[in-house]
Amino acid sequence: MRVGVLTGGGDCPGLNAVIRAVVRKGVSEYGYEFVGFRDGWRGPLENITCELGIPQVRGILPRGGTILGSSRTNPFKIENGVERIKENLAANGVDALVAIGGEDTLGVATKLSELDVKVVGVPKTIDNDLGATDFTFGFDTAVNIATEAIDRLHTTAESHHRIMVVEVMGRHAGWIALHAGLAGGANVILIPERPFDMDKVVEYVESRFRTNYSPIVVVAEGAVPKEGTHSLQSDERDAFGHVRLGGIGDMVAKELEKRTGKEARAVVLGHVQRGGTPTAFDRWLATRFGLHAIEAVHDGDFGMMVALRGTDIVRVPLTDATKELKLVTPELYAEAEVFFG
Amino acid sequence: MRVGVLTGGGDCPGLNAVIRAVVRKGVSEYGYEFVGFRDGWRGPLENITCELGIPQVRGILPRGGTILGSSRTNPFKIENGVERIKENLAANGVDALVAIGGEDTLGVATKLSELDVKVVGVPKTIDNDLGATDFTFGFDTAVNIATEAIDRLHTTAESHHRIMVVEVMGRHAGWIALHAGLAGGANVILIPERPFDMDKVVEYVESRFRTNYSPIVVVAEGAVPKEGTHSLQSDERDAFGHVRLGGIGDMVAKELEKRTGKEARAVVLGHVQRGGTPTAFDRWLATRFGLHAIEAVHDGDFGMMVALRGTDIVRVPLTDATKELKLVTPELYAEAEVFFG
Amino acid sequence: MRVGVLTGGGDCPGLNAVIRAVVRKGVSEYGYEFVGFRDGWRGPLENITCELGIPQVRGILPRGGTILGSSRTNPFKIENGVERIKENLAANGVDALVAIGGEDTLGVATKLSELDVKVVGVPKTIDNDLGATDFTFGFDTAVNIATEAIDRLHTTAESHHRIMVVEVMGRHAGWIALHAGLAGGANVILIPERPFDMDKVVEYVESRFRTNYSPIVVVAEGAVPKEGTHSLQSDERDAFGHVRLGGIGDMVAKELEKRTGKEARAVVLGHVQRGGTPTAFDRWLATRFGLHAIEAVHDGDFGMMVALRGTDIVRVPLTDATKELKLVTPELYAEAEVFFG
Amino acid sequence: MRVGVLTGGGDCPGLNAVIRAVVRKGVSEYGYEFVGFRDGWRGPLENITCELGIPQVRGILPRGGTILGSSRTNPFKIENGVERIKENLAANGVDALVAIGGEDTLGVATKLSELDVKVVGVPKTIDNDLGATDFTFGFDTAVNIATEAIDRLHTTAESHHRIMVVEVMGRHAGWIALHAGLAGGANVILIPERPFDMDKVVEYVESRFRTNYSPIVVVAEGAVPKEGTHSLQSDERDAFGHVRLGGIGDMVAKELEKRTGKEARAVVLGHVQRGGTPTAFDRWLATRFGLHAIEAVHDGDFGMMVALRGTDIVRVPLTDATKELKLVTPELYAEAEVFFG
Repeated sequence: MRVGVLTGGGDCPGLNAVIRAVVRKGVSEYGYEFVGFRDGWRGPLENITCELGIPQVRGILPRGGTILGSSRTNPFKIENGVERIKENLAANGVDALVAIGGEDTLGVATKLSELDVKVVGVPKTIDNDLGATDFTFGFDTAVNIATEAIDRLHTTAESHHRIMVVEVMGRHAGWIALHAGLAGGANVILIPERPFDMDKVVEYVESRFRTNYSPIVVVAEGAVPKEGTHSLQSDERDAFGHVRLGGIGDMVAKELEKRTGKEARAVVLGHVQRGGTPTAFDRWLATRFGLHAIEAVHDGDFGMMVALRGTDIVRVPLTDATKELKLVTPELYAEAEVFFG
Repeated sequence: MRVGVLTGGGDCPGLNAVIRAVVRKGVSEYGYEFVGFRDGWRGPLENITCELGIPQVRGILPRGGTILGSSRTNPFKIENGVERIKENLAANGVDALVAIGGEDTLGVATKLSELDVKVVGVPKTIDNDLGATDFTFGFDTAVNIATEAIDRLHTTAESHHRIMVVEVMGRHAGWIALHAGLAGGANVILIPERPFDMDKVVEYVESRFRTNYSPIVVVAEGAVPKEGTHSLQSDERDAFGHVRLGGIGDMVAKELEKRTGKEARAVVLGHVQRGGTPTAFDRWLATRFGLHAIEAVHDGDFGMMVALRGTDIVRVPLTDATKELKLVTPELYAEAEVFFG
Repeated sequence: MRVGVLTGGGDCPGLNAVIRAVVRKGVSEYGYEFVGFRDGWRGPLENITCELGIPQVRGILPRGGTILGSSRTNPFKIENGVERIKENLAANGVDALVAIGGEDTLGVATKLSELDVKVVGVPKTIDNDLGATDFTFGFDTAVNIATEAIDRLHTTAESHHRIMVVEVMGRHAGWIALHAGLAGGANVILIPERPFDMDKVVEYVESRFRTNYSPIVVVAEGAVPKEGTHSLQSDERDAFGHVRLGGIGDMVAKELEKRTGKEARAVVLGHVQRGGTPTAFDRWLATRFGLHAIEAVHDGDFGMMVALRGTDIVRVPLTDATKELKLVTPELYAEAEVFFG
Repeated sequence: MRVGVLTGGGDCPGLNAVIRAVVRKGVSEYGYEFVGFRDGWRGPLENITCELGIPQVRGILPRGGTILGSSRTNPFKIENGVERIKENLAANGVDALVAIGGEDTLGVATKLSELDVKVVGVPKTIDNDLGATDFTFGFDTAVNIATEAIDRLHTTAESHHRIMVVEVMGRHAGWIALHAGLAGGANVILIPERPFDMDKVVEYVESRFRTNYSPIVVVAEGAVPKEGTHSLQSDERDAFGHVRLGGIGDMVAKELEKRTGKEARAVVLGHVQRGGTPTAFDRWLATRFGLHAIEAVHDGDFGMMVALRGTDIVRVPLTDATKELKLVTPELYAEAEVFFG
């Protein structure tokens, strides 16, 4: 049995831990051989492979990123993409594929699976917005990095009686903002799921100053203000065409400065949140995902994806991966609101 | 409504986060007043109280330990203990109690609850060995500290072609050893649930040297060797009557040195694992436990304890807390065994 | 003897360690009393004081920021500023002042000293650009935070074959960029002392891609490109009037993307660099600065400032503090250039 | 020109940074070739070599340990040791040697240098006890790890009204204890340079309890009690012949428990202090040591060693390396004593 492995989409702490677990168990328990495909779906598409065995996965467990490289290549948008993939899999003698990735990567896997490619999926999203699993790896690392940053900003805020706005990842779902905001003792948390009332944000911030305690505002990059509550102008949003520049964090800081008369500073955590060594939780989760994915290959249980439920790893259809975005519920947001103001 | 709060047993990162959440929500949502009882059950027993309100819980979220202090006092082993507690609760006008603690502390809470004291429990065990909940706070912090230590020891082991033995917490359950061992890429993991075969440990270690990669052995403090596989002598175990000195980690290191002819060193992580600032996960879990505990008080749902199931916080009877120890299952241990040797 | 203490200018990890050391030694060795002045020179100017003694400095050693608050108030720019300060010092029975701060704060201290106010200075600049001392506290913490961020970005850069640009603090001097760039293994380091040749930066980056290793560009916020080597437009620099937004990091990333055809992302570390718990080095240095400052008070050695030379703490005239900016020398920059490209 | 590189003695964070800097500058600036010798002096003695060039030093900057391995082999204690080394150097075409190591390794280098082997030394001691240089790399990492551990133990000590004793490295010199004790806010610091009065330690600890603040005792592994002030028995010192077991930390904890009636716990940090990724300071210092060492080779300045003086890297005769141990002076210890009790 020869198994191909690839990683697609944005990088995420824990990818290497998955790869290592897949290979270690595949080799030692089932005697499988492995082929690494480089840079996501580009690998099987353009037949870019690399050796993948016990020596290649030595020492990669604590390392961020992915030794296989990544890309956002979608073979369904490329002429004869699917045929070329099938040909290259055959040419490499690959019987089954383990695809590690997010919505896009697993979307491709799902369609290929329906076209008789034998695939098992491992879900990956640093944003934790996948409905089929309790948590995804990488998320815990991102939340810890954001929380540590918030811890650091508290002392600056207090020493200077200043508002600190922290922009964290999360375009469509506010999980990182919610968890890091709760863990970091934020004054307000703004998430994409709930357009925010700028008047209320001003109120929260001012009430914090009255108790002589400086405010930290945590805002997900995808958060948006309610119309009529703010004077933010969308054309200020992005000077260079990049999304992160002059983003929502800066806008909120600017508006708070205007309306409270206090200094406000924005910090955009950006890519620091998704790089580097994974936390113990993410290594544990990624390792178990890898072990169970290769077990699914061994069981011939293709078209499936591994997922965490409680403390169990289960298998769910790949189609579940992309079915619906897991959003922060009003109930969970209400829990956090207790600490606002 | 006046609510008493106490923390008992060994300290654990996240205790302060629970206290803060209980008080913040109790005050701002329900208008409750609070009384802090010092040092576990000693507080209500000897009527040692402290002020507890919004100002007292400011800034404590990231701090380890407990602002209320702790002890292992058991009022059921003290003459008139229960009567004195009831009297002191009444004297302080306390209508309900939030008790945060482990097996012993919640064992007392359970019995008091049967004697009509209105108690809600919050489970705490750094060892994660409580059956009623998926995880307990403090555990993730301990695992991260142990994992970081293992990461550091890898480079020493490799540079010196040496065996490093890391002794972690876990007297009855091997959860910390299992998770940190998996996350740290251990060569072997030894846990209390499964008496270990010293001959096999020697084999694993030697096989690691053959691949030119130095071994890390992770051993829970409560792990024990199988008879007939070792020459460890129990009277070497403890020179001073303390449990941690000359413990199992040192014994294993000594035996490995003898039998492999390679240098071996033991590191006993000890109390470093349970102190200091909690991880984001533990702050999130502890905060949510606190929020749901005070909600249970508000609902009059006494004799209950909060617990994590998946990503939900649920309530379970206090009696469940102490019913049975959650042990590492053979299946979970088998997952880790893939990486041995 | 009654001693006033104040902290001015931008906050910096280690300020609390200085305050603690001043008070601990002042009280226990010399029997002094202390008065805390709030928010830099605003404190003595507007007579805003706070209690300052052993209880107030308990537990502050590991905390970032300053318990005394800070501001940029300059009494020489305020009518009767100096008179009011003298009056308020007298009204509080203050015999001597310990002023902890940077160029501006110590500039005021210098002038007040010439007007017979008894002051001892403690230098503070996170940028490390003070000629009179080998290092200033806070700098080591900032460098470690920036280095850890660079470590994390390496894995993202490699997984995505992407250029990562990291903008660090340093308006006039490139010390943080130099040290963090060296420690983090940067591909290029851009500092204010040396206008950079954008053509060369492009060359370095491209050469790194040829070795299949992704580039990290570290740029100080005050770095500027040489004319004629770039197409950056200064009006893109700042959309909102804030300096950090759309700063040099973003400009460099944008230009690199255009000219190399590779994706580039900028991360602006911002205030995270100056908040939170100090490193051991900064706690050690700040503590020793505090001890020696109060000793100078005891010796009646006013108009002086403490400084680090090798491993010794020495005293230098306050006028030295502001005399000249310590810049990165061509020799030191040449050391780092070995690693470029 | 062909240059050999070796690392000897106990491992230390920063060794890889030195190797990388030596090779990077040697190759790119001087066009040198390199040979790696494995495991300290065992390498040239037994002719165990490895490839060493730009590809081998890629990515090793942040990694602890040494890619060249280490040992305590001393060729002067082995028959024909020196001859064999000379032969093997010649056989490998090695013109000069960069030897990175502590007292023993550099002692060998000194003697070989007198026997016409062309050596440049790079000093390495995690204990910082080398007189010729202000600091050695690895020390800052060890101090930070110990300080972080002390930070964590504070909260446990306070929550349980317990004495925590932390044993850190330092057999002959107390630098790690002094710096980490100062940085961590220790109650007492015990160092080898000054036999400690156990009665006074008891006094300090008791005075700390009176202020309702729990004591942390930091003790260097080589600290010894004054006769007549304690009941410690040397035969309790070591149950297994290992030095670290039942060491001075445990003895002090035991005695404090007896005499104060309070619980005391010892934590022995051990090898965790010397492994893993170096701090930014250590990477900077190690990198600069490497750059200047290869420059000395280029200048033909053999028999010399690099050293830090203030912020300059200088060259001193190799004989200085081993001339005298740098001990904590009474003046520096007195600085720390301000915080005792």
